[in-house]
Amino acid sequence: MSSTSPIDVAWMRRAVELAARGIGSTHPNPVVGCVITARDGHPVGEGWHAVTGGPHAEVGALRMAGNRARGGTAYVTLEPCNHTGRTGPCAQALVEAGIARVVYAVPDPNPQAAGGASYLVEHGVEVESGVLSGEAEAGNGIWLHAVRTGRPFVTWKFATTLDGRSAAKDGSSKWITGTAARADVHRLRATCDAIAVGTQTVFDDDPELTVRDEFDVPVERQPLRVVVGDREIPETARVRNPQAETLLLPTHDPAEVLRQLADRQIRHLWLEGGPTLAAAFVRAGLVDRIVTYVAPALLGSGRSAVGDLGAESIADLRRFSLSDVTRLGDDVRLTLSPVSQHAQSPARTDLRTV
Amino acid sequence: MSSTSPIDVAWMRRAVELAARGIGSTHPNPVVGCVITARDGHPVGEGWHAVTGGPHAEVGALRMAGNRARGGTAYVTLEPCNHTGRTGPCAQALVEAGIARVVYAVPDPNPQAAGGASYLVEHGVEVESGVLSGEAEAGNGIWLHAVRTGRPFVTWKFATTLDGRSAAKDGSSKWITGTAARADVHRLRATCDAIAVGTQTVFDDDPELTVRDEFDVPVERQPLRVVVGDREIPETARVRNPQAETLLLPTHDPAEVLRQLADRQIRHLWLEGGPTLAAAFVRAGLVDRIVTYVAPALLGSGRSAVGDLGAESIADLRRFSLSDVTRLGDDVRLTLSPVSQHAQSPARTDLRTV
Repeated sequence: MSSTSPIDVAWMRRAVELAARGIGSTHPNPVVGCVITARDGHPVGEGWHAVTGGPHAEVGALRMAGNRARGGTAYVTLEPCNHTGRTGPCAQALVEAGIARVVYAVPDPNPQAAGGASYLVEHGVEVESGVLSGEAEAGNGIWLHAVRTGRPFVTWKFATTLDGRSAAKDGSSKWITGTAARADVHRLRATCDAIAVGTQTVFDDDPELTVRDEFDVPVERQPLRVVVGDREIPETARVRNPQAETLLLPTHDPAEVLRQLADRQIRHLWLEGGPTLAAAFVRAGLVDRIVTYVAPALLGSGRSAVGDLGAESIADLRRFSLSDVTRLGDDVRLTLSPVSQHAQSPARTDLRTV
Repeated sequence: MSSTSPIDVAWMRRAVELAARGIGSTHPNPVVGCVITARDGHPVGEGWHAVTGGPHAEVGALRMAGNRARGGTAYVTLEPCNHTGRTGPCAQALVEAGIARVVYAVPDPNPQAAGGASYLVEHGVEVESGVLSGEAEAGNGIWLHAVRTGRPFVTWKFATTLDGRSAAKDGSSKWITGTAARADVHRLRATCDAIAVGTQTVFDDDPELTVRDEFDVPVERQPLRVVVGDREIPETARVRNPQAETLLLPTHDPAEVLRQLADRQIRHLWLEGGPTLAAAFVRAGLVDRIVTYVAPALLGSGRSAVGDLGAESIADLRRFSLSDVTRLGDDVRLTLSPVSQHAQSPARTDLRTV
């Protein structure tokens, strides 16, 4: 019989720090950190899941600890896995190393990987869970959302003038926001697994939908480009260029889009519009975060950021919760989450960590 | 012959502090502060223009100083006046008190009141100007703008959703923003001399256009209510109630509106819309500051904050300079000024002082 001590919390905090080192490079896996202390309580091993296909956090920490792990405690931010994927099951590795006690923060919601805790208990290991679970959840917010709901987390991004216009009367829209805001878009796009637009946006703007660095050079890991809609898009469209993979989804149903992307293990979809596609996602309740850039400018006419949402009166207003306001040059970025999901939304924390 | 010393700057800074005590209660006059030091340099008098019709700053300071003013120095934030209005000319009072030197920050741009410096020099007083003029200008930004240009300073206020809507399809608009933002509107309205709307807004919203305190009780000093447009408004319209004075201006020309208000010594007009009136002011280049409240909500349809501005392409975008971003509850207030006037705009400072 044991209970959580301040020492357990301290080592778990270290494990959460280690986990954060993997942010952005473990897709479609979560980030995980692990600390191993010897029987006498001294730390003897540290590890983290650094890159997809690389060793899991527990394996790295066990390697560092060697024989000193015997009789010791492992602190892990996520329940140790119990399946053989690209690497062997961590629960088994912990038992084989002679670990006497495992403390983890968050249970693994992935049905393919869960069951690690049961395996450990069955093999005589003392197991505790829930230590620093809030901090550990925050680091894996997007991944946990995607695995728990079975669909990607959706971030809808748009840029408007003060009067809510995303393009002028003639369709031109370059540029409403300034360089700092546009660089921020590329920084945030890079944290997603897929970028979606509707066919109309391809016809209107011919976007490339790649992530470029501060020198306007495409980065190495490019999100999947997704074009939603029935209309045939030209072979010459920039979104078809070889800079990144492109998926054409001839549907108008946001739920179907997310099903197809979930099948491809997309955890985080970056939705860029236009207004019709955005309105479809909003009406379906499938927007988990809004990132909007407001430019200090007026147009007075032109294309709205979002299409008809069926609102007749002010009672139909769709409210969101404001989680962050950041000035970027002369523009302002607002980050919002749906009101009902506010309490458990990872929106705020994740933006801070990217 | 003399030159400005750090001691002069220090006393002028005190005079600027004193001047700020009058903000909001000296309409249509500027705020003014005054410090008098005796011949030996010790401070012997302080004064400020506290309320319209009350003693000018110099007179208050001279009274406090009494005979100790003789041979001393007067620090005044604005050039001492040379005319007899509600009170006698200050330049004369300074001479009569035996002041040997006058240091002032900003020349008086008001043709009726200017000439004080010349009067002082003619009567053997040593005069210096321009000390801390930036700080002193900031405290009188609105007044200086109005007197220098001959028309009121115009602040256009609007509230929108993220997609730039100020009302739903059926015209309903109560409420897009939350209580903190609405209280802020009343706080800022109270600093203006007149509030204008177009006739359409009277028909759509039937606003009262009064300033109310945190208990929703009308405050004592109410700005003039101005209704712009040709259409006859009903006798029962709330804007015609006895809570405040109301002026009907049967015109569509913003310049004409400002001329009429200048004749009534209105220094600061608070423009509330709707979209047609706002667009007319924007197109005429007669908006000196924008205060906009963005609510974290979507409508997808309904009335825009501003009407057609004649923009065809993104090249016609009207840019403003962002001077402040403030979160108010779940809403965000943006304060902007026209780009060309940015350098000399009093926008930022004035909002801080109210």
